[in-house]
Amino acid sequence: MEKRYYSYEDFLADTKRLIQKIDWEFDTIIPIARGGLSLAHLLGEYYNIREVYSINTIGYDDTLKLESVKVFNIPDLGKAKNVLIVDDIVDSGDTMVEVLKVLRHRYPDVAFKVASLFYKKSAKRAPDWYVQEADCWIDFFWSVDLNRKK
Amino acid sequence: MEKRYYSYEDFLADTKRLIQKIDWEFDTIIPIARGGLSLAHLLGEYYNIREVYSINTIGYDDTLKLESVKVFNIPDLGKAKNVLIVDDIVDSGDTMVEVLKVLRHRYPDVAFKVASLFYKKSAKRAPDWYVQEADCWIDFFWSVDLNRKK
Repeated sequence: MEKRYYSYEDFLADTKRLIQKIDWEFDTIIPIARGGLSLAHLLGEYYNIREVYSINTIGYDDTLKLESVKVFNIPDLGKAKNVLIVDDIVDSGDTMVEVLKVLRHRYPDVAFKVASLFYKKSAKRAPDWYVQEADCWIDFFWSVDLNRKK
Repeated sequence: MEKRYYSYEDFLADTKRLIQKIDWEFDTIIPIARGGLSLAHLLGEYYNIREVYSINTIGYDDTLKLESVKVFNIPDLGKAKNVLIVDDIVDSGDTMVEVLKVLRHRYPDVAFKVASLFYKKSAKRAPDWYVQEADCWIDFFWSVDLNRKK
């Protein structure tokens, strides 16, 4: 599959574009770990939101379906009203669908919206805001830079 | 106070140096949010550790002391054995001391060690591993890049 290197400079430019798009006030940011962590870091600094709580998922084989997603490390959102969930990419959408299901079930009075850098049109759920459509494999800088020779 | 801009390239180089220093196997990474989030993201990818759980702190005025630190969003470490706590800088050390106290009290059987990019010699507690001593104010890229003109 075609691969694309996504540098820190690409990430910074896209995060600026994402901020331009997000027309919603939120009090809490939930990055899906690990992919959403760097984005949540910059957004938390930009919006001056200290309530940045990671959530984690793991894919596992299910006897009935090809793959299921388990959500864990679910944060306490007792004081949250509007929560922005962030990830690097909404790919199949399985992860985001499951995260939203778990969070909405546990916190029915909290509003959740989703922002990501990339989005695949074939995903089950579109983010509320995204920057680019993904049409190839993306080598994010956080995954590859520590192993690159320079 | 003198200020220093700390770029993504500085961060990447120092994270590589930090990895060289860490002579310990760990199964879980806890970034102190927000400062440790980007570092935890790259370390999690590098070591292939999915268990990256943020923890949060807030400083508040106390009637007796100048400032106290409250720790919240404490992750479930029921399956963890060796946990690396990461932050951008160990400054006064107040935050790290309090995080370690809370975590060791709740999880007496878990081993905790600390890694940071910067460390001030005047801190109450030194990290187990760090890269640079801080002698001025540091403008980390995650705090300032979204607001810089380019």
